[in-house]
Amino acid sequence: MAANQIQLDHGSGGRASQELVARVFLPHLGNRFLNDLNDSAALSWDGLRLAFTTDSYVVDPIFFPGGDIGRLAVCGTVNDLAMRGADPLYLSAGFILEEGFPFADLERILQSMAAAALEAGIQIVAGDTKVVPRGAADKIFINTSGLGQIPAGIDIAGQNAAPGDVILVSGTVGDHGLTILSRREGLAFESPLRSDAAPLNGLVRLLRDVCPRLHVLRDPTRGGLATTLNEIARQSQVAVEIQEESLPLRPAVIAAAEILGLDPLYLANEGKLVAFLPETDARQVLAAMRSHPYGREGAIIGRVLPENPGRVILKTAIGGRRLLDMLTGEPLPRIC
Amino acid sequence: MAANQIQLDHGSGGRASQELVARVFLPHLGNRFLNDLNDSAALSWDGLRLAFTTDSYVVDPIFFPGGDIGRLAVCGTVNDLAMRGADPLYLSAGFILEEGFPFADLERILQSMAAAALEAGIQIVAGDTKVVPRGAADKIFINTSGLGQIPAGIDIAGQNAAPGDVILVSGTVGDHGLTILSRREGLAFESPLRSDAAPLNGLVRLLRDVCPRLHVLRDPTRGGLATTLNEIARQSQVAVEIQEESLPLRPAVIAAAEILGLDPLYLANEGKLVAFLPETDARQVLAAMRSHPYGREGAIIGRVLPENPGRVILKTAIGGRRLLDMLTGEPLPRIC
Repeated sequence: MAANQIQLDHGSGGRASQELVARVFLPHLGNRFLNDLNDSAALSWDGLRLAFTTDSYVVDPIFFPGGDIGRLAVCGTVNDLAMRGADPLYLSAGFILEEGFPFADLERILQSMAAAALEAGIQIVAGDTKVVPRGAADKIFINTSGLGQIPAGIDIAGQNAAPGDVILVSGTVGDHGLTILSRREGLAFESPLRSDAAPLNGLVRLLRDVCPRLHVLRDPTRGGLATTLNEIARQSQVAVEIQEESLPLRPAVIAAAEILGLDPLYLANEGKLVAFLPETDARQVLAAMRSHPYGREGAIIGRVLPENPGRVILKTAIGGRRLLDMLTGEPLPRIC
Repeated sequence: MAANQIQLDHGSGGRASQELVARVFLPHLGNRFLNDLNDSAALSWDGLRLAFTTDSYVVDPIFFPGGDIGRLAVCGTVNDLAMRGADPLYLSAGFILEEGFPFADLERILQSMAAAALEAGIQIVAGDTKVVPRGAADKIFINTSGLGQIPAGIDIAGQNAAPGDVILVSGTVGDHGLTILSRREGLAFESPLRSDAAPLNGLVRLLRDVCPRLHVLRDPTRGGLATTLNEIARQSQVAVEIQEESLPLRPAVIAAAEILGLDPLYLANEGKLVAFLPETDARQVLAAMRSHPYGREGAIIGRVLPENPGRVILKTAIGGRRLLDMLTGEPLPRIC
């Protein structure tokens, strides 16, 4: 029976999600834009290049340290545009509200969206609200879709990683996912966890200026860094090797992940990016990254290898090498 | 308590929905695009004019005579673009699925979306899927956002109705809303009701070619024809007068509405439009409308008057005149 039905891990961003897209969605809806599997579609109108993307946000709890569903809904879509090298400009916002949802919570979420929009420098230009009877939805779901402009000469996509590329991450990983999951489990830690939810378009603009030849940008959300690297390795048909000891991790995240039995490499981030770029530019890009408030803990974490295309290898601190797979079989529902 | 919470009629598209937008959403998110209250935002890039819109679909039941949630999700957003005079080009699709949702139903919905996209001549270029645990959503919700191009010289908006304008409707009203509500009540009628869900961009292209001076186009969805006319009367600060006897209504709709105690003028349509245009073009536009499969039962239903701005008046068959208000206090949840 279960085989004929949607399971929680179809939404976790890992292998099951990808199979759902490949086996169910693409056969019906596929076209050259969707088949591309990038964070945004890149559309062209006589010389003008636009990025277009959509995401629904169903995070539970809706308020959490470091953000709320509203901040997430703005930042997540801004980031999906930025990961194509686009300057995000306009967002739409579609709300599904459960009957009985408190106005006070709605206002708090809208304030948070307005603040995130201001920070990102975008405008929310289209909206829609639906209300469903009590029990037909859990509190509030938000969809945001976004439009951005891709500057001339910029070509950033998951297909563009090349052997020799250096891989950077813009800061600590696992913060968002672990914050949500600890909240849900009712765990409190001594050094508090905070979601990293943030708009990354300013950081991307900076990196783009320093290195117009950026090959790949991607924000490791659902499925975490490990899944994102696997996606890129597969799309570019290259191998990715990362050094365990170079991964930025907060001590609080390490501690909480151990207690919950989770690997931070598979946990969602909402204010981080990974960048693939030619080695010659790596030092300069890293310096630029660290000069930005959202890239201060940026690090070089690995490189792209020509052999074993599609594989992601983790070099451990003690010198071992292990295969890092996509997230698989571990349902982490409503993380974003 | 209820005053502090979202109520079902905040989502019905009538007065409560408008108050929610005006009192809660616009104070936080308002800008010149949102404040406009049109079906799409009109965006400009050096000469290029784009329409951008979003809608979430939460209809219950998800399958119904004449369509399903997938057809609705494509047609509704295509129509919101077309109502700005735009040629719809690209859609995004965001799915929220409940754990346990049958694959067979999902495939049927995707087939239906693909067919509607083909009919409308648009491409779905961006997508997202979230899964929530059993009970956190009811089966499936779909958000579609859309992008279209507004041809040069076209200026169609709710603000443009002018005294002397003639008002046309493209066919029978109330079909969609009544189909959904009868299904939900488990009512079966002798002459079956069918939703009118259809993409109207082809019809709009035809009308636009015949009359580039079209003032207003709007699809009377939630809240029905009466609410839509009230919105336009208010936005353009004019009065609207319509003739009861000129309104196209299916006998099956009249019968079912009587049984359910509902007024077809307040019931949703998903494949109809109202058009406001200069009187000199009315006959020609009506002829063009009737030549199109989705406008065959089109009719001239009224005109715009200068006095009593903001009012909508219904002239009854026996010569009386009554004020036609917005939908108010009648929650019709999950109609689209």
